[in-house]
Amino acid sequence: MAEVWPEDQLSADRFLGGKLQLIQPKSGYRAGIDPVLLAASVPAASGDTVLDLGCGAGAALLCLGRRVPGLSLTGLELQPSYADLARRNAALNQLGAEIVNGDLQQMPACITQRQFSHVIANPPYFDRCTGTRAQDAGREAALGEDTPLADWIASAAKRVAPKGTVTVIQRAERMPALLSAMASHLGSLEALPLIPRPGRTARLILLRGRKGGRADFKLHHGWVLHEGNSHPGDRENYTNATACVLRDGAALQFSQ
Amino acid sequence: MAEVWPEDQLSADRFLGGKLQLIQPKSGYRAGIDPVLLAASVPAASGDTVLDLGCGAGAALLCLGRRVPGLSLTGLELQPSYADLARRNAALNQLGAEIVNGDLQQMPACITQRQFSHVIANPPYFDRCTGTRAQDAGREAALGEDTPLADWIASAAKRVAPKGTVTVIQRAERMPALLSAMASHLGSLEALPLIPRPGRTARLILLRGRKGGRADFKLHHGWVLHEGNSHPGDRENYTNATACVLRDGAALQFSQ
Repeated sequence: MAEVWPEDQLSADRFLGGKLQLIQPKSGYRAGIDPVLLAASVPAASGDTVLDLGCGAGAALLCLGRRVPGLSLTGLELQPSYADLARRNAALNQLGAEIVNGDLQQMPACITQRQFSHVIANPPYFDRCTGTRAQDAGREAALGEDTPLADWIASAAKRVAPKGTVTVIQRAERMPALLSAMASHLGSLEALPLIPRPGRTARLILLRGRKGGRADFKLHHGWVLHEGNSHPGDRENYTNATACVLRDGAALQFSQ
Repeated sequence: MAEVWPEDQLSADRFLGGKLQLIQPKSGYRAGIDPVLLAASVPAASGDTVLDLGCGAGAALLCLGRRVPGLSLTGLELQPSYADLARRNAALNQLGAEIVNGDLQQMPACITQRQFSHVIANPPYFDRCTGTRAQDAGREAALGEDTPLADWIASAAKRVAPKGTVTVIQRAERMPALLSAMASHLGSLEALPLIPRPGRTARLILLRGRKGGRADFKLHHGWVLHEGNSHPGDRENYTNATACVLRDGAALQFSQ
């Protein structure tokens, strides 16, 4: 597990239009737009505490820290090598963040003793029982799951303070399981489908619940990621609203 | 229960741009656009058999019969007075339909002996335990539920033939319960959120499952009902696609 990458196998990548730099392994699990969208959707305000379950190299946690000043940031990461990268990325971006190496199924005492205003997670997208393994071990741990989705949600719900929020990004195909797990622990559930292009089936879903929330479930109008019906060659064609989130660090509001 | 309306308490209302007429009580449960949208979404073809659970005065069943020629139509309705109206409406529109008076929790043998290519339902929208009662008894039975949503789905799943579909329209707020119930009995689930206006929260959801289906859950891009951000006075402002469904009897495709 304690993989350490030689410097020439790491790359420094720009996020939020260059307002954030992340060092990531060139091969292995690399953050795309998913953790950026997750971070943009969290209704956090200065003074709040945030826990990122499975923070990887810190993409979501640090994007959130860059967007909202004055947060107390904590990340839990199973793989020591990624936890090290997350610490290094926090320092590189001059963001204070406590990164804890540990398993969410046996959570370290320094985390179980606390509750957080917001818990976020980007759990693995594929059930290991039905998928094929990735060649890279780190990528495998990030993409395939040893921990069932329901355990991610149960852990998140335990660590969030009353009235606090849990926000998760996941493949839209797993919405039934995710919604069922969240409904067991949280209230005031809200879902935002993320649609690749107008009229298409959702690729991802953002789901949020509130501890002790009593409002009805809300299903929001899908957020469209790209303009038009196909990819116009090399040109990036994010919708304006998506470009504002990815490039300018704007918040992603569930209600548009 | 055996309410009979004097003729002057009934109205004849036009659906599908006048291609269908429905006699309905002036006060009581009256079909709006919901059963029309439900009927438009069913992937039925000539020769298929259809069962409508809780068919009321026949709006969904007869809209479907008008759109797709050559279906064998069966409706189950708890309230004898609505079952009578459904028979009368089938005759009025020269559509053959068998309307059975009975309870889906004690389903009549003439239905339990058969399986259907498609089962549709527009179950009551409010849980009687948490809602206030409607003044009209018929409206109450149609809007409030004595039968839990999960029983509607279990009954539908029992009556649908292998590879057949169950399609349900419901308030979007109840998507978690509905999805959970459908996931227990059916596969290849697909959801189409119905959005009142661009960017708004879904008001209704269409959910479809297939008996024995093994495909992943699909969440489709929301179907927008009205143009613009507010209602322009008296003028109807359905989107073109919605107007085609409501006025021209077009099919409503989950994948746009």
